Amino acid sequence: MTDKVKTWELISREPVTRNGWRDLERVVFRRPDGSEADFFIKIEFPSAVVLALTKDREVIVARQFRPGPNAIAGELPGGAIDEGETPVQAAERELLEETGYRGIVRHTAVVLDCAYSTKRLHCVIITDCEKVAGQALDDGEFIEVVLMPLPEFREHLRSGMITDMEAAYLGLDLLGLL
Amino acid sequence: MTDKVKTWELISREPVTRNGWRDLERVVFRRPDGSEADFFIKIEFPSAVVLALTKDREVIVARQFRPGPNAIAGELPGGAIDEGETPVQAAERELLEETGYRGIVRHTAVVLDCAYSTKRLHCVIITDCEKVAGQALDDGEFIEVVLMPLPEFREHLRSGMITDMEAAYLGLDLLGLL
Repeated sequence: MTDKVKTWELISREPVTRNGWRDLERVVFRRPDGSEADFFIKIEFPSAVVLALTKDREVIVARQFRPGPNAIAGELPGGAIDEGETPVQAAERELLEETGYRGIVRHTAVVLDCAYSTKRLHCVIITDCEKVAGQALDDGEFIEVVLMPLPEFREHLRSGMITDMEAAYLGLDLLGLL
Repeated sequence: MTDKVKTWELISREPVTRNGWRDLERVVFRRPDGSEADFFIKIEFPSAVVLALTKDREVIVARQFRPGPNAIAGELPGGAIDEGETPVQAAERELLEETGYRGIVRHTAVVLDCAYSTKRLHCVIITDCEKVAGQALDDGEFIEVVLMPLPEFREHLRSGMITDMEAAYLGLDLLGLL
């Protein structure tokens, strides 16, 4: 690898819009050739996403309507990491709230989300899950829990109707299940 | 699957910010229980991302600084689909511009990107790539082309320092290379 690719120098950043969830900043960098360039960057909080498998190696899928794609998707459980929580605590909480399952944390990994977002995705892999409670959904959450055997889950991934595909494949990879 | 998970009724949408690239809309839906809820939705164009392999089955990686994560990442080639282009045409153009390689289109797939974005990711898998030209980078692009043998690419995926992980794993899956 050459010196061609360097970290750019941050010159300035200013808010474009602030609304508590989808903040944008105009960020100016100095590039390797000395020129300045500005970008609209999404300021997004880290989130936790859980690849969770039951003792029978079925994947716990949260089937729900998603307002961005305007479609029903089969998602991995997960959500925002609350103030004071670790990513693992957030993952365990979201899994329990959305599905009623609890298990053993096996791996964690951090993944970049988007070239124009500050977001980091904390992937948490939980195995040997058992149902210990009912769902405890937030107001406005309508989630159907679907258990998918691995071959069916792989087909689901190939369908593309999931926004957490990276965490799903990465989790299966780290578990040696690809 | 039950009737619990339904498509929500779209009530209204209004712009929050318009800047040509990172538009936000406030979108109001009626949920299954009859209640209304509003969301800040990212209005993002579809993009094309390319898992490209050489004849020697090395993955063509575009190593570059990314302003969102503020880090150097090893990315898949790709970018916005221009007006009048098909996703495959965009993928072939971006691959050629960023890396100078051209090959044979094997698969295409469409993947959801984010629960709060309209974006669809068009994944294009191109194999048997050969170098036919030099890079033709846009102003401000600083990209180092790195050829990674499959085992090294799998390690790179596990590092998380890539924003196109879903397309990478999906492409390897569709090629039977996982």
